[in-house]
Amino acid sequence: MKFSPLVDDLIKALQCLPGVGPRSAQRMAFQLLERDRQGGSALGQAMTQAMSEVGHCRSCRTFTEQELCQICANPKRAESGQLCVVESPADLLAIESAGQYGGRYFVLMGHLSPLDGIGPDDIGLDTLDGMMADGQWQEVILATNPTVEGDATAQYIAEMARDRGIEISRIAHGVPVGGELEYVDGTTLALSFSGRRKI
Amino acid sequence: MKFSPLVDDLIKALQCLPGVGPRSAQRMAFQLLERDRQGGSALGQAMTQAMSEVGHCRSCRTFTEQELCQICANPKRAESGQLCVVESPADLLAIESAGQYGGRYFVLMGHLSPLDGIGPDDIGLDTLDGMMADGQWQEVILATNPTVEGDATAQYIAEMARDRGIEISRIAHGVPVGGELEYVDGTTLALSFSGRRKI
Ligand SMILES: [Zn+2]
Ligand SMILES: [Zn+2]
Repeated sequence: MKFSPLVDDLIKALQCLPGVGPRSAQRMAFQLLERDRQGGSALGQAMTQAMSEVGHCRSCRTFTEQELCQICANPKRAESGQLCVVESPADLLAIESAGQYGGRYFVLMGHLSPLDGIGPDDIGLDTLDGMMADGQWQEVILATNPTVEGDATAQYIAEMARDRGIEISRIAHGVPVGGELEYVDGTTLALSFSGRRKI
Repeated sequence: MKFSPLVDDLIKALQCLPGVGPRSAQRMAFQLLERDRQGGSALGQAMTQAMSEVGHCRSCRTFTEQELCQICANPKRAESGQLCVVESPADLLAIESAGQYGGRYFVLMGHLSPLDGIGPDDIGLDTLDGMMADGQWQEVILATNPTVEGDATAQYIAEMARDRGIEISRIAHGVPVGGELEYVDGTTLALSFSGRRKI
């Protein structure tokens, strides 16, 4: 015991947060105890409630405490017949923030990774295949990350969609708008060349 | 609303932690929801309990959920008649970890800072004066930080102790053992010269 049982417990528990070691956990605990008990209490309550009540959307698998997330619950989002496949809720949010896409999503909550024992069922591809079988979707847009695993996952889903006769597309990768060419990594540059379009 | 109410609440609540902005809060929330619900639940409970139950030691003011902290509750720690004044519980822990000091502490939970409206009573100096009046203490060791505010606070307490006829000392500041001279800052070097001892 370094301080008192409850303070020690708090410092230890804070270290479950990514990037938080013993010293920053101690700093966080003291900061809240000294200056922000209200914020700390709100965090304790939000944490407890989220951990026990947040599950996955029955349709797209993103995080929600409801049966359907707000996007899947909105009938307008299915009208276009477009289904965008992303790896994580954060990716979904990034696309929503861009404000261009009005279709639905499917959130893999990961990617295929045979070395880590993560196969198709672990990222919900059985559910996705069931969705693709219902005849509601005209286009599957693959927006997995441009990494080895993300590409392999996209490839796998593309074959599933092809078997169902659904149109498939992959979002474009290349030099970001406003990005300076000299600071863009080689892989991205190579993708921006192979994906070039005639003007 | 970006995700679902409970997920949004959690991401917002996490931002009360020092150094945690919107993006890292989102990363933390997703990490716990995806991979460590047990850790998250333990954190929620530890946080709620600490915020509501942890108070201050009646004697030394450090954090504890008991009336007296473990150090003040140990009669052996009062035998030397030494009282070490520090700014924070973290400072107390650093001194305890060094393992040399066997006396008691007084934790200011801050330092004098007239510009921020922090006066003597805000850092418990009325309580400290009461302690010094009870005739139990032979020596007050000032271990506030070697900063402008820490030095001013030490100076203020030194005068209080002098009025009570108690011996006063200030911990030594200088080049850390194992520290290389060329990397030590100028203020520390100046202190190490002014505090030099004949050999
Ligand atoms: Zn959904
Ligand atoms: Zn105490």
